[in-house]
Amino acid sequence: MSTHKIVFTPSGIRGEVETGTDILSAARELGADVASICGGNGLCTRCKVKLSTGSFPKHQIESDTDHLSPILATERKQINDADLSEGYRLSCQAKIQGDVVVDVPAQSQTHQQVIRKEATQINIENKPAVKMVTVEVEEPELDSPSGDLERLKDSIEFEAGFTHLKIETSLLRQLQPALRKGKWQVTVAVYDGERIIGIWPGKQEKAYGLAVDIGSTTIAGHLIELASGEVLASQGLMNPQIRFGEDLMSRVSYSMMNPGGDVKMTQAVREGINHLVDQLLIVASDNPDNKQQITKDLILDATFVGNPVMHHIFLGIDPVELGGAPFALATQESLKMPAKDLNLNLAAGAQVYLPPCIAGHVGSDAASVVLSETPYEDEAMTLIIDVGTNAEIVLGNNKKLVAASSPTGPAFEGAQIHNGQRAAPGAIERVRIDAETLEPRYKVIGVDLWSDESGFAEAVGETGVTGICGSGIIEAIATMYLAGIISTDGVVKGDKANISSRLVDEGKTWAYKMVASRTDDPNSLSESGVLITQNDIRAIQLAKGTLYASVMLLKDKLNVKQIEKIRFAGAFGAHIDPKYAMLLGMIPDCPLDEVKSVGNAAGTGARMALTSMSKRSEIENEVLKMEKIETATEPMFQEYFINAMAIPHKTDHFKHLAQVVTLPVLSDASSSVGDEGRARRRRRSSRGGRPNISR
Amino acid sequence: MSTHKIVFTPSGIRGEVETGTDILSAARELGADVASICGGNGLCTRCKVKLSTGSFPKHQIESDTDHLSPILATERKQINDADLSEGYRLSCQAKIQGDVVVDVPAQSQTHQQVIRKEATQINIENKPAVKMVTVEVEEPELDSPSGDLERLKDSIEFEAGFTHLKIETSLLRQLQPALRKGKWQVTVAVYDGERIIGIWPGKQEKAYGLAVDIGSTTIAGHLIELASGEVLASQGLMNPQIRFGEDLMSRVSYSMMNPGGDVKMTQAVREGINHLVDQLLIVASDNPDNKQQITKDLILDATFVGNPVMHHIFLGIDPVELGGAPFALATQESLKMPAKDLNLNLAAGAQVYLPPCIAGHVGSDAASVVLSETPYEDEAMTLIIDVGTNAEIVLGNNKKLVAASSPTGPAFEGAQIHNGQRAAPGAIERVRIDAETLEPRYKVIGVDLWSDESGFAEAVGETGVTGICGSGIIEAIATMYLAGIISTDGVVKGDKANISSRLVDEGKTWAYKMVASRTDDPNSLSESGVLITQNDIRAIQLAKGTLYASVMLLKDKLNVKQIEKIRFAGAFGAHIDPKYAMLLGMIPDCPLDEVKSVGNAAGTGARMALTSMSKRSEIENEVLKMEKIETATEPMFQEYFINAMAIPHKTDHFKHLAQVVTLPVLSDASSSVGDEGRARRRRRSSRGGRPNISR
Repeated sequence: MSTHKIVFTPSGIRGEVETGTDILSAARELGADVASICGGNGLCTRCKVKLSTGSFPKHQIESDTDHLSPILATERKQINDADLSEGYRLSCQAKIQGDVVVDVPAQSQTHQQVIRKEATQINIENKPAVKMVTVEVEEPELDSPSGDLERLKDSIEFEAGFTHLKIETSLLRQLQPALRKGKWQVTVAVYDGERIIGIWPGKQEKAYGLAVDIGSTTIAGHLIELASGEVLASQGLMNPQIRFGEDLMSRVSYSMMNPGGDVKMTQAVREGINHLVDQLLIVASDNPDNKQQITKDLILDATFVGNPVMHHIFLGIDPVELGGAPFALATQESLKMPAKDLNLNLAAGAQVYLPPCIAGHVGSDAASVVLSETPYEDEAMTLIIDVGTNAEIVLGNNKKLVAASSPTGPAFEGAQIHNGQRAAPGAIERVRIDAETLEPRYKVIGVDLWSDESGFAEAVGETGVTGICGSGIIEAIATMYLAGIISTDGVVKGDKANISSRLVDEGKTWAYKMVASRTDDPNSLSESGVLITQNDIRAIQLAKGTLYASVMLLKDKLNVKQIEKIRFAGAFGAHIDPKYAMLLGMIPDCPLDEVKSVGNAAGTGARMALTSMSKRSEIENEVLKMEKIETATEPMFQEYFINAMAIPHKTDHFKHLAQVVTLPVLSDASSSVGDEGRARRRRRSSRGGRPNISR
Repeated sequence: MSTHKIVFTPSGIRGEVETGTDILSAARELGADVASICGGNGLCTRCKVKLSTGSFPKHQIESDTDHLSPILATERKQINDADLSEGYRLSCQAKIQGDVVVDVPAQSQTHQQVIRKEATQINIENKPAVKMVTVEVEEPELDSPSGDLERLKDSIEFEAGFTHLKIETSLLRQLQPALRKGKWQVTVAVYDGERIIGIWPGKQEKAYGLAVDIGSTTIAGHLIELASGEVLASQGLMNPQIRFGEDLMSRVSYSMMNPGGDVKMTQAVREGINHLVDQLLIVASDNPDNKQQITKDLILDATFVGNPVMHHIFLGIDPVELGGAPFALATQESLKMPAKDLNLNLAAGAQVYLPPCIAGHVGSDAASVVLSETPYEDEAMTLIIDVGTNAEIVLGNNKKLVAASSPTGPAFEGAQIHNGQRAAPGAIERVRIDAETLEPRYKVIGVDLWSDESGFAEAVGETGVTGICGSGIIEAIATMYLAGIISTDGVVKGDKANISSRLVDEGKTWAYKMVASRTDDPNSLSESGVLITQNDIRAIQLAKGTLYASVMLLKDKLNVKQIEKIRFAGAFGAHIDPKYAMLLGMIPDCPLDEVKSVGNAAGTGARMALTSMSKRSEIENEVLKMEKIETATEPMFQEYFINAMAIPHKTDHFKHLAQVVTLPVLSDASSSVGDEGRARRRRRSSRGGRPNISR
């Protein structure tokens, strides 16, 4: 079989692939950064690339249109004619049949997301698994032969009380030189009171650890001094698995479709983590406050948390069973193992701890959030939500906790949305709409000004307005509803098209044009600008309805009437405005000042587990006690889901929201609205006036 | 720096080395088989090779005399002129300065030793560390999420009672496919009641293990079915470390002189073991009785025994501390570790067990011999000797055991002996001398006939008589003593030179020519034939005196008058005739029918430890209780040693030997002989008559 050269720009990554390989597969094979959400099925358009034609002497390549397979119907459906004529193709559909140079536009690159992974302060009693013990060891004597290790163990027992210690095989080699170099004084690292995992001549006071949250999109790591718990460096990295599929299910599906695909993904994430460790060490050594030179040899313990798919792939387990019912985890319990079993470049004797997973789609990341937020110590009824393709939900208090996952789909992450994108510079994240004129104003990530403030255009600069992210779409739909543009049932109404050109007739449906076209900037949007379509609203309704219905089930399970605290974990929660989320009916009623983002709480939990053995027991016990609900098999789910589709949600009272938002008067009455809903809307109507948000 | 080609014949091993490299180093670098005892110091002549000159088109080499450095004085001293003119060189002295072809004569090859490593029958209760458990596992259910591993562990607990099992990281990956392939029936291998180390779909009844004795010269391995203890294959292999030095001390010295040398030796022995495993599997699969196809994936446990240097190098520990007082072991206790920590190609989860070492020069091989011979269960006072460069000695009974090592040096192994060699085909192993004519008759290894029987020459054939091995030199000296050729003090007497040309005048000393020259066979000896020199006798006197004095110290320690059993372990013991050993004063008095070779008892002990957990505890306890004697620091050692130099030994009674051997009348009286010795010799003399051995 013949091969062809392929060069990806702007990365410059190049290689040879067999004829007939699609561009996306080539990118994955060569490590080029091309996004894909739908798993290479020609549905998501995230993998759109542009064929560059002509001669590229530097690469010794002649690239031409007929070096790719003919344009398919799938592509014609997803790419407009202008783009097609410019050479845009879906990389999952276009097959390589000659040498090609392929440009990956910014939107199709995966590395653009804003990674916000700072460490928050935690105050817990530090009792790490690793204890450093410095001892004086008796010298060997000809008359009473005994092994150096045995005399060392005697000293450790005398000094620190540890008995029957085992030793890592790889350390046997270091033992005798260390004793002699240290003139019979050495420091050993004892793990969990059971094993010697490190040895140094003389004194070595400090040992370090790693706490890592393996997200589907980003991997966030902290380098920590174990005894003090001090965070010496925090770094984030895009999960290199992204080239195999942007969301969890596309990675599971990649493994199903490609024998050995899971092994590649395992390698990718472990390499990513090793790279992250390098970065953490560089950052820590750049910090003048860190007096000691920190090397990998001193990183002795590490905790890793992640959702079940990430957890499994990291461990080298094919995630295929998590791709379908009954979503069986290979293992659920906490795990301990040597770091070298996972090909991690830490100290030779370094150990790894993974907290337990909660259920098939509720991972050790959710367990870590629980550890960080300790709802099990709180009397207040607390709802914890980690939004993702599967939202992970925990509800409860110091009496009982229940957990579930909710298959919200990727809409909240900007996928399946006409101009949706990840939270990255240029993405709309805040929206307000004037109810009279229907004119919008908005803010984009990376710029502090609103779009109607002077200097906005300059501040946005070349990046332009590139699309709308998850929090942006939530505010857009909520404010469209407040402005009377959409009905309770989520229908975009065309009745004000005469007063505003923002309403665009799309045949059977209407859309709202939030941003006009900006064709002057090639990296920016195509001619359609930022359009909020009827489909977008349906996608968000499905997602929020699913989430809300799942929460309802958990409330039922605990017989809870009122939720007192809501905590959003993860990147999504950091951007969201609770008022709009509640207005949209995404989350249930709750005092608004108790709806908070807790940032990377999973990472915080991982740090706690790293530095405290008692915290490890704590989360293991709490997960054991926790009840897991499979929402899909609960009889009430469908009914809750259908009722939760409308805006605002009809079967709840939103008393706290009503204190700060005046809900709109709407003329339409959906057939699906029950008596209670109608009555509430009548009550709202009787207050009269325009929708108004107190901010 | 320029490089030159070198080809070793007959092996055909070739490569390029830097100019100035000596031939021995080149052989070690390229893996060619060239022996060396003295550690490359030009003293032992074992590394003698022959430069082939001329054109070798196949190798594209012109080999010439001046392609090696000029002949050194060291070489002139060790190689006679005839050999020098034929191109013989010491490979440790001759440096490569051009392309060369080098012939390695049979005597200089290390692989020629006869390896006798058959497995003997053992009868112990089998209770291996690995237990195979077949279970039915509950299928996962959507409604009650739990990990497959947790349900598997529930089933194992129910079936076999094992709780809190850990699992090897590498098996996590196999778990889910195995459960599904086996339709929820799987077999797991549980190690030590603690860890799951293997998993198979459905039923897998048998598991296998490996018991290996890592000798300095040979590695002997047995493949064993764990539950039954049945030996499926036994194989021996030359220890590939030999290319770094033939005896233990030359390997320790190799490590001292060459940074990273220990790492090379570790790699060599582990590769050798992996090769041995391949061979064992081939042999086992050739056996029609073995119905199941045995693969590495089913080898789940392994025990390794060896002397401390072999033990350390195998574990990756630099043996340098064992090279000098106080001979500190890195570790003495028994060890357990995953086989992969030692780069062994067994099952992914395979485990390794090493019994404890006894002291700095008394290894886990000696502990294994003790386990095999169980002197601690016996009322009879038993002496166990494993002869080697260091003899390992254990004395005692069911009341107490004491152990020591005795630095006998390599003379018993044929080194430091003029025509000494390892036990290999062509080596003299049995000797008788007619006291009238002084004519010898002898047997060589590989031939059943005595040298004076018809057909001997044909039977010896091309191999010829190549030298004399350890048991041969012992019989030679003992029979020379019986024939009146040497005195009690070990002096070769020339007084019968007039009646026999076997006595050769060597200036200040006399030698005994056992075999005349055989210059017709280039692979055989040089013109000197097999000569027993005065130096040979001194070397054996030193060795046997050291051994005997050490035994005396142990007897003192236990206040023992009479030894009731003597057991020779190892290859040396398999060849030795107890009468001659006792006659020489190598071993103390003991009923002669209770002096036995126990063959590879270390290997037998390794097999016991492999198949029985209780045997592991047993040897660990016995070694803890055992008293270790450092002979060098015992005040009596020097006195015992001096007295033990003579033949036969003067401070013991040899009442059992006297029942079968009439000791010779000798005219000389050594000045070092004490009153007791003189008195005894007078008693013997009074019996009169010729030396006579009843055989």
